[in-house]
Amino acid sequence: MCLMSFSCKAQSKTVSKEKKSTQQEHPSLILTKKAVSEIRSSLGTIPIFDASLEETKAEVDAEITLGIDVPVPKDLSGGYTHERHKRNFLIMQKAGVLYQITSDDKYAVYVRDMLLAYAKLYPTLPVHPQERSYARGKLFWQCLNDSNWLVYTSQAYDCIYDFVTKDERKLLEKDLFRPFADFISIGNPQFFNRVHNHSTWGNVAVGMIALVMDDDKLLDRALHGIKNDGLPDDMKDNDGGLIKKKGQKVGFFGNLDEPFSPDGYYTEGPYYQRYAMYPFLIFAEALQNKKPELKIFEYKDGVLLKAVDALINLSDEDGDFFTINDAQKGMSYYSRELVTCVDIAYHYGGQNPELLSIAQKQDKVILDDTGLSVALGLKAGKAKPFIKKSIQLRDGQNGDEGGVGIIRKDGMELVYKYAAQGLSHGHYDKLSYSLFENGNEVVQDYGLARFVNIEQKGGGNYLKENKTWAKQTIAHNALVQDETSHFKGEYEIGSKFHSDNYIFNVEDENLQVASAIEKNAYPGTEMLRTMVMIKDANNPKPYVLDILKVTSTEAHQYDLPFYYLGQLLKTNFKYESPKEFKVLGDASGYQHLYREGIGVSDGSNSTLNWLLNNNFYTITSVTLKGDELILARIGANDPEFNLRREPTFIIRKKNTQNTIFASIIESHGSYGPVSEFSVNAYSNFKSVEVVLNNADYTAIQMETKDGKLSLFILANTDNSIEKSHQLIINDKVYQWNGPFILK
Amino acid sequence: MCLMSFSCKAQSKTVSKEKKSTQQEHPSLILTKKAVSEIRSSLGTIPIFDASLEETKAEVDAEITLGIDVPVPKDLSGGYTHERHKRNFLIMQKAGVLYQITSDDKYAVYVRDMLLAYAKLYPTLPVHPQERSYARGKLFWQCLNDSNWLVYTSQAYDCIYDFVTKDERKLLEKDLFRPFADFISIGNPQFFNRVHNHSTWGNVAVGMIALVMDDDKLLDRALHGIKNDGLPDDMKDNDGGLIKKKGQKVGFFGNLDEPFSPDGYYTEGPYYQRYAMYPFLIFAEALQNKKPELKIFEYKDGVLLKAVDALINLSDEDGDFFTINDAQKGMSYYSRELVTCVDIAYHYGGQNPELLSIAQKQDKVILDDTGLSVALGLKAGKAKPFIKKSIQLRDGQNGDEGGVGIIRKDGMELVYKYAAQGLSHGHYDKLSYSLFENGNEVVQDYGLARFVNIEQKGGGNYLKENKTWAKQTIAHNALVQDETSHFKGEYEIGSKFHSDNYIFNVEDENLQVASAIEKNAYPGTEMLRTMVMIKDANNPKPYVLDILKVTSTEAHQYDLPFYYLGQLLKTNFKYESPKEFKVLGDASGYQHLYREGIGVSDGSNSTLNWLLNNNFYTITSVTLKGDELILARIGANDPEFNLRREPTFIIRKKNTQNTIFASIIESHGSYGPVSEFSVNAYSNFKSVEVVLNNADYTAIQMETKDGKLSLFILANTDNSIEKSHQLIINDKVYQWNGPFILK
Repeated sequence: MCLMSFSCKAQSKTVSKEKKSTQQEHPSLILTKKAVSEIRSSLGTIPIFDASLEETKAEVDAEITLGIDVPVPKDLSGGYTHERHKRNFLIMQKAGVLYQITSDDKYAVYVRDMLLAYAKLYPTLPVHPQERSYARGKLFWQCLNDSNWLVYTSQAYDCIYDFVTKDERKLLEKDLFRPFADFISIGNPQFFNRVHNHSTWGNVAVGMIALVMDDDKLLDRALHGIKNDGLPDDMKDNDGGLIKKKGQKVGFFGNLDEPFSPDGYYTEGPYYQRYAMYPFLIFAEALQNKKPELKIFEYKDGVLLKAVDALINLSDEDGDFFTINDAQKGMSYYSRELVTCVDIAYHYGGQNPELLSIAQKQDKVILDDTGLSVALGLKAGKAKPFIKKSIQLRDGQNGDEGGVGIIRKDGMELVYKYAAQGLSHGHYDKLSYSLFENGNEVVQDYGLARFVNIEQKGGGNYLKENKTWAKQTIAHNALVQDETSHFKGEYEIGSKFHSDNYIFNVEDENLQVASAIEKNAYPGTEMLRTMVMIKDANNPKPYVLDILKVTSTEAHQYDLPFYYLGQLLKTNFKYESPKEFKVLGDASGYQHLYREGIGVSDGSNSTLNWLLNNNFYTITSVTLKGDELILARIGANDPEFNLRREPTFIIRKKNTQNTIFASIIESHGSYGPVSEFSVNAYSNFKSVEVVLNNADYTAIQMETKDGKLSLFILANTDNSIEKSHQLIINDKVYQWNGPFILK
Repeated sequence: MCLMSFSCKAQSKTVSKEKKSTQQEHPSLILTKKAVSEIRSSLGTIPIFDASLEETKAEVDAEITLGIDVPVPKDLSGGYTHERHKRNFLIMQKAGVLYQITSDDKYAVYVRDMLLAYAKLYPTLPVHPQERSYARGKLFWQCLNDSNWLVYTSQAYDCIYDFVTKDERKLLEKDLFRPFADFISIGNPQFFNRVHNHSTWGNVAVGMIALVMDDDKLLDRALHGIKNDGLPDDMKDNDGGLIKKKGQKVGFFGNLDEPFSPDGYYTEGPYYQRYAMYPFLIFAEALQNKKPELKIFEYKDGVLLKAVDALINLSDEDGDFFTINDAQKGMSYYSRELVTCVDIAYHYGGQNPELLSIAQKQDKVILDDTGLSVALGLKAGKAKPFIKKSIQLRDGQNGDEGGVGIIRKDGMELVYKYAAQGLSHGHYDKLSYSLFENGNEVVQDYGLARFVNIEQKGGGNYLKENKTWAKQTIAHNALVQDETSHFKGEYEIGSKFHSDNYIFNVEDENLQVASAIEKNAYPGTEMLRTMVMIKDANNPKPYVLDILKVTSTEAHQYDLPFYYLGQLLKTNFKYESPKEFKVLGDASGYQHLYREGIGVSDGSNSTLNWLLNNNFYTITSVTLKGDELILARIGANDPEFNLRREPTFIIRKKNTQNTIFASIIESHGSYGPVSEFSVNAYSNFKSVEVVLNNADYTAIQMETKDGKLSLFILANTDNSIEKSHQLIINDKVYQWNGPFILK
């Protein structure tokens, strides 16, 4: 049997030898005997490591004082038994490490006794009483959490392997670890044999315990999946995600190959990438220690290391991850998973000094040799600022399934999404975007409809509004045709397609352009959306020009929502205010919006000026006579108050075949609540105008209040950088090379 | 003519002499020749002063570079001409001071040239074109802002008095200062001859320029008002406030006597106190320098100094002022007015080292000898933390018109209002409260309906929703009878009455009680509301027990709203969710609330659990079978989006004569968006119960989830501390002394 899928023949001999040499030694997963000895001799001289050690000690000591509790499983996440078992595995992992580093037996005793308690309980357990999951666990309501448990507990077991007796080991492996590994794999192939973050955890859980027990057969199951899983083709999970495509490569390598793009972007988005990165990297570290011949960190051109870089780039100025697809706001690179990722990436990824500055912000390291490396690097003053630049992260196994473009300039961050579906956690929001200023979201992506681990809200799990609202197109800053979501909101259709990048050019930091095309969301309709961030002498801050060109074979209704956050100050258009607030529609998310105002454009620009975090913002949009201007708010048909009651502004074009939306979005001023001074409370622009729009070219003219004109021209069909263009607009000749120009 | 109203005879001789000795000298208002010389010799050795000086120089130098602009007045606040004239007086004052300290003529030239420009413009000006104010100014839309201008500009003039020629002085006084002072006083007696923060500014403006010009007749007008103003009795301002009560004492002393209580509480509330404190204290400083015989800082037992202390105590942990009456959130002791207040109070108030720590936070001082004192104190390391304790601040000229009780414990701050009306900026919210945790508002007072100086919103002035919403009782955490505001929402009635304190006892920091009575808000109905903050061993944090006893001569509908901020997580009661959101009522603020849910109590406790700033909170309320439980939101009939769309929970008792409301409000847990852990997500209480409620006693029993009982007993009619009580409840005998006990 061969474990190495990608360089099997060449190295199989070496492996057999290598195996013998390390298989008896413990610890050997995230700690090795050599690392332990280095750590011990450095203690007291490595501030961040020493502090992390003390913090960990204090935490574990407190838990030891409280005593061991291994309750009979009962609750959903957020409930006592769930949180207790979660805490148990986190603390066991730490206690194991503390035993190795401090040589204090009390930590080993604690882990041993808890493991024995689990070994006593586990054989008596039926599947978890909560029936919500497509793959119910035993300790937890879903196999996913059981896998979390095993990933962490394997490390603890590795650390005290030599401390426990042979008989205890036998008992633990027979009554706990082997049946546990079997249950989450062959007992739940619909969970284990997928390409999904769930399965990654499952694969790694099995792989980690296989490495501790030196069981290559089990390791093979982890790396390559179950051979004949007998899963039906159309099976779905409880979030509506398809379990498996026919013939799909599964197991750890399958989960590494398919969802990661060559740029290290994980197709589910950064929130789940963060969650999946822990098992990916901790297992990679264990494989590197135990099976160095696999060269796992070089796999797929070093994709695991690139992924850490990608993740950091997918965070705002404060380190909070951008909300793409299902994502809870507030998750950041301060999470424990990212501490692990940064340390491992630093140690195994060429000791990039920029990672040290992230570790410095995290203010902790993991207690192994990667954490030691970081501590030594910081001590040596090697840290350099991690400069987040404008960047495109391609999606898809081969990087050819669209992507995410991030444009940054002077505190403004634009996140433009033109990626693939993103597996079962994907949202139906092709060519959507969000905008941040100084780490605060200004034009929002809603994120998920869930309160993770807050039991009051549906056990802390996904709420039904995630499907009826958060995933729907109208919940995003994306075009909706005929009040129906992209791909009819159907996963089977959506997961077949992706948008395509048309331009991503950030060479000139004062004129950065990301443009993408979507042809499949609505068959017969093509959208070309171009997001431009411009910094010029006429404006105090960078502003965004948003151009969305729609071409269709027939007439439709088009809605383009704009989810500004904050307090509406003023619009330049008249609108009627209803006496009672009624829903906007019946389905596709419209049932969750209620109308607070409706106006009709007279054909001039429509503006909306608002205040957020004491900054003044304005959107100035091209609107045609008759366009409806809708002010709405989230929260209709939401009896449980599961949604945040935040506003939106929708431009609606009825009975329209081809059209164009064009807007300027500006941050232009500020307010001092203490000084009570307003500075630049109004937009700096007098107008935005479409001066040309045909199949080949689109030209948008912007005029500031003091009469300064600028013209952005886009070539709609040729994105070649070399191509020269010539165009006459209002009797003036424009000549340039490449797909766009700003004059 | 005698200037000294309070010790006239004894000192009049000394004054005449004193007057001669100082009248020729300039500067003599906030800077004196002596102070200037001390400052000059200390420069470079007093860090906070030096830094403030540099900052001021940089700001003024930038303005000098821009050049002088004295535009013809046109705009409301927020508009260009308003903001320009405002900036002009602020910069002139600074430039004057800089001239004195640095001896650099360019500052004097700047002030002189600007003053001459004003002297040229002023005689040509009609009243301001904006017609909104009851007392239109000339430079600004209201005399109030004209007075601001003169208060600051007088200081500038004083600083360059000796720099300008005698002819220039003559011109300035003839064409600008005298007509200016006359216009805002005898030209607008309805503005000048009032007790109101507006008039304080008017009085001080006239007084300051009188001191510079050594004009005792004008000074007398400032101190005592206009003798025969000819004002009609029932005249009102544009906010609906009564101009003047018959025979009311006016002028600076009138404004010092009446609105300030002996505790230094200013009846309009801290937001306006902050605004008024600047003219009060800057004029006091000038009087102290120029007329020391007045002993202004000793006036009314040192009320001006006490007022600074009171103001600091009226701020939350971050220094933001509590919102009482008309108040914009976010105003804090970091405002420029408070920098002045703190410096002056430190210098003239016995150099309290606690004030130094506030100055340290403000990180700047004013550029006069009071700022020098602070700088020297800080340099000498004298600063001590300003410990804000629980405190009662009595309202009313003699301290007998109710007050505000602030209870603090472990980061929780309860602000209980049982004060007088608060002049024209008062709200109709007797026995209302707000609650803060760690400087964040948790149960809110709405504040004003205005966006100060944000021109988009009604010129930055009061919006009509201030009257229709913010002032109404239903907008507060206060009892509403029959959907009508206290005193029918009529100022004439409300300003005749005040609530009365019944208990304010904070001796035991683990059991702090504030209780007050209101008998006049609804004739025939008496409310006794008792707010208790308890810290006991059974609960991780202090919690609030809120008991509102209502006794009436007839049956009414009673509504008690609860303005929690944040995301509703769960209620324990069922409610219906309407398909369309309709208004709650027709008037008295109800027209601005729309109903999101309505339930009916089954007679058990009603709970509402919510999340704010990653903290978990719960209110647990006694409700009787049939009580309506209404979930509503602000924002109905608000076509301009002038209101914040925030939630409320209302307990409604219909057709009820006497009743009691009792609730526990707890902060009990926290959530980590990065760790995704919930800690203590649920209330710690099983129940709260009224076990006794008669005319003499009210007893509330609370039970925690683990069965721990506690009983709070209140004596309803006797607040004597000595009085012994004996009571049998459920066969158990309770004996104690004083008006309350917790067992």
